[in-house]
Amino acid sequence: MSHTRVLTGITTSGTPHLGNYVGAIRPAIAASRAAGVESFYFLADYHSLIKAQDPARTQRSTLEIAAAWLACGLEPDKVWFYRQSDIPEIPELTWLLTCVAGKGILNRAHAYKAAVDRNRAEGEDDDAGVSAGLFMYPVLMAADILIFNAHKVPVGRDQVQHIEMARDFGQRFNHIYGQDFFMLPEAAVDDNVATLPGLDGRKMSKSYDNTIPMFASRNELKKLIAGILTDSRAPGEPKDIEGSALFQIYQAFASAQDTAAFAQAFADGIGWGDAKQQLFERIDAEVTPLREKYEALMARPAEIEAILRDGAARLRAQHATPTLQRLREAVGLRDLSQVSTVDAKSAKKDASVAAPTFKQYRDADGKFYFKLVQGERVLLQSTGFASPRDAGQRIAAIKQGEIGDGASDFALGDGVTDEEVNAALAAFVAAQLEGEGQA
Amino acid sequence: MSHTRVLTGITTSGTPHLGNYVGAIRPAIAASRAAGVESFYFLADYHSLIKAQDPARTQRSTLEIAAAWLACGLEPDKVWFYRQSDIPEIPELTWLLTCVAGKGILNRAHAYKAAVDRNRAEGEDDDAGVSAGLFMYPVLMAADILIFNAHKVPVGRDQVQHIEMARDFGQRFNHIYGQDFFMLPEAAVDDNVATLPGLDGRKMSKSYDNTIPMFASRNELKKLIAGILTDSRAPGEPKDIEGSALFQIYQAFASAQDTAAFAQAFADGIGWGDAKQQLFERIDAEVTPLREKYEALMARPAEIEAILRDGAARLRAQHATPTLQRLREAVGLRDLSQVSTVDAKSAKKDASVAAPTFKQYRDADGKFYFKLVQGERVLLQSTGFASPRDAGQRIAAIKQGEIGDGASDFALGDGVTDEEVNAALAAFVAAQLEGEGQA
Repeated sequence: MSHTRVLTGITTSGTPHLGNYVGAIRPAIAASRAAGVESFYFLADYHSLIKAQDPARTQRSTLEIAAAWLACGLEPDKVWFYRQSDIPEIPELTWLLTCVAGKGILNRAHAYKAAVDRNRAEGEDDDAGVSAGLFMYPVLMAADILIFNAHKVPVGRDQVQHIEMARDFGQRFNHIYGQDFFMLPEAAVDDNVATLPGLDGRKMSKSYDNTIPMFASRNELKKLIAGILTDSRAPGEPKDIEGSALFQIYQAFASAQDTAAFAQAFADGIGWGDAKQQLFERIDAEVTPLREKYEALMARPAEIEAILRDGAARLRAQHATPTLQRLREAVGLRDLSQVSTVDAKSAKKDASVAAPTFKQYRDADGKFYFKLVQGERVLLQSTGFASPRDAGQRIAAIKQGEIGDGASDFALGDGVTDEEVNAALAAFVAAQLEGEGQA
Repeated sequence: MSHTRVLTGITTSGTPHLGNYVGAIRPAIAASRAAGVESFYFLADYHSLIKAQDPARTQRSTLEIAAAWLACGLEPDKVWFYRQSDIPEIPELTWLLTCVAGKGILNRAHAYKAAVDRNRAEGEDDDAGVSAGLFMYPVLMAADILIFNAHKVPVGRDQVQHIEMARDFGQRFNHIYGQDFFMLPEAAVDDNVATLPGLDGRKMSKSYDNTIPMFASRNELKKLIAGILTDSRAPGEPKDIEGSALFQIYQAFASAQDTAAFAQAFADGIGWGDAKQQLFERIDAEVTPLREKYEALMARPAEIEAILRDGAARLRAQHATPTLQRLREAVGLRDLSQVSTVDAKSAKKDASVAAPTFKQYRDADGKFYFKLVQGERVLLQSTGFASPRDAGQRIAAIKQGEIGDGASDFALGDGVTDEEVNAALAAFVAAQLEGEGQA
C-alpha cells in the first residue's frame, strides 16, 4: 500500500464550538484532502459513555457533531466516516487486547493518575469514584487504532502516551501470537494547532463555560462576541494585541495580511465596539455558509444516520470483519471443524517412547515416596515425605529443573548416571515449556 | 415467565478429566433436566484467553470440552448450548458495564488480590505480570450473566464474590439509566458437589498433574488406576477407607449400597490389586458408552461446530440482540433519526427568560472582574482579581454553591436583596446538576 492511514477520533460530547472548529475540525478536514492519505474519522461514542451518562444528550451531541463535520466539508464518499458503536469488532478486539495488556501500564496512564491525585488531595481512597471505563480507556483506544492498522494518529501532546500504549499492546499481541498482525501506529503531534481563547481569555472549553457555539445564530454570535473580555481603554487609546483574546480569535479567522492590518488598528486605538464588529463580520462570513449546511443537515437526521451506517457497513466488510477474523484465528477462537490433531498425536507418540515419569506411592512406614522411572528402570528414588502434598511439590520442583541443594531427598537408581537423569529431566522441562506439564 | 434461568460457564482449557465429570458435567446435566428451568451452558473461550495463549490448544480444548458435554447427554435442542465468542453482544455489553463499574470494586476481586499477594511475597511490583484480563474478568463475567438476565448461577464458594460484582454492576446500570434493565442474579452454591481426589490423593486437577483423563482408552484407564496412591498393606490386612483416594473415587461412581459393600471389602482386607480392578470396572462401565459417543463426536468436529453456531444464532435472535438493542437505547447509542430535540429547545427557552449570567472583564486598573447580571440588573459585582483564571475559578465555585467565607470578594448590586442572589445562584446549581454547566 502506498498510502498512509490516518485515524482521528471525534469526541461526541457537548455542542461544537468555535474552539473545536479552529483546533480540530477545520485542520482535520484540510488534512483529509491531502494526496496519498486514507482518512478514518469516527464518532467516539463508546468513549463518551465513560463520562456522559445522559442518554438524550449523548444522542443529540452525536447528531450535532456528525452534522458539524459534514457541514464543514467532510466528504463521506472520500474518507471513512463512521460511528464507533457501529463496529462491533471494536469491543471484541478490546477484549483480545485486554488479555495481553499489562495492568501495570494502565496504572500509569495520565488521565487515571490525575484522578488518583485528585482523590489523594481530597483524602479519599485512590480509586474513589473512578470507573473501570476511565481505567480501561487506553485499551479501547488501542482497539480503535489497531483494528484498522492505522499508521498515524494526530493527537495533542497529552494523548501521545495513549498511542504508545496502543503500540505496546499491539507489539505484545504480535509477540505472543508470533506474527506481525498489527502495524504499530505513530502519534502525529502538530504543535502548531491553534488553541482558541474563549470569552474570558482562557482556552475555549466547555468546562470553562466560555465558549462560542459554532452554529449560534447571527444574533447570538454578535452578543457573545460583545461579551469577550477586554480592558476598558477608551477609543483612541492604543491597545495591546498581546494577551488580547479578541485579537487572537480574529487571527484564527483572517489571512496574515488582514491580521497585520487589525494589529495596526489596535495600535491606532480602535474602539472595542468597532473591533468586535470587525471580528463578528469575519467569523460570520466564514460560519454563515457552514451554518446553513448544518441547519439543513440537522433537519434531516435520517440522512446523517444513513451516512454513518453506510460508512460502517462498508468499513466492516472491507476491513474490520476480515481483520478480526484473522485475529480470532490467531488467538485460537477458530472453527472447530478445522481442528488440528497434530499436537495431540505427537504428544501421544512421545509418551509411548518410554518417556520418564514420576510415580508416587505410600509405603508401609506410612510415609510418601516418589520415584522417577523410565520403562523398567528406576532413575531416582526419593526418601519419605510426611504428606503426598510435600512429595508432589518436590516432584513439581524437580520437573521445573529445581534439583535443590545437594539433592539430599532422593538418590540415583542402581547403575544410573547423572547424565541419564539430567537428560530425563531436560525432557520434562522441555515438555513443560511446550505443553504446560502434560508430559 | 414462570421458569428460572440458570447459567453455567464452562472453562475451555485442558482436556476433560474425571474430576470435571464428577464435579461439574454430571451434576450440571442432571440439573438441566429439572422442570421449570431454562438452562444456559456456554464455552467460556473469551475467559480462557486470559491465561491460555496457545491457539492450537485453545481450539482443541474447546472441541474436546464441547464433545465431552454432548457425549455426557447435554441436549442442545432443550438447553442453550453456545460458545461465548459467538455472541458479539457479550464484549459490547462488557464495555457498557466497564463504564459503570467502580474500579475500586475490581481491586478487591480475590483472583486479582491473590496475584498481587504473590507478587508482594516475591518482592515484585504489585502488578508485575498481571494482565488487564485478569483484572477485568469480573466485568466480562457480569456481561455473560446479565446479557441473558440469568436468575441463578451455580458456582463454587470462591466464585460467589464475582456474582456479587455482577449484581453491583447491574444495579449501578439500572440506577444510572433509571430503569430495571437487569435482573440481579443470584449465586447458587452447592456445598455437596463432590471433589474427586486425583492419583496422589490431592484434589484431581490439571495443575497437580494427577488427573485421569475422562476419555482415556480402557488400557490407559487401567494403568492410571493402577497408579493411584495407596499404602503398602498386604492382601488380607484390613484397610482404611478414611483418606483413601481409591475408595473416594469408587464412591463417586457407585450407589450407596455398592459403596457400603466396598467399605466392607476394605475392612475384610481386600488386596489393592483387586480393589483397583473393581474400581476400574466401575468407572469403565459408566465411561465406556460416553467414550463411544465422545469418539464419534470428535470424528465429526464440523457437527459440533454447527451445533454451537446454531445455538448462538438462535440465542442472539431471541435474546442477546434485542436485549443489547434496549441497552444501547438506554445509554444513548441511538438511531439519530429518532433524535429528541426537546432538551435543546427547552434549554434555549430557559436561556431567553433572562437567565442570570456571569460576565468577566478587565478594567483600566489591569485587574480582572466579574459581575452576575440578570437582564439589565447587576446582582453581584466582584472586586479585582490578579488573573482571569482566578476570577474564573471564583465564578465556578460560586456556581457550585460555594459562596465562601463572608463573601468578601464581591458585593451586592444596588437595591439587590440576598434572596434575589440566592434564587439566581440556585438556578445555576440546578442547571449544573442537570446539564454539566451549559446554563
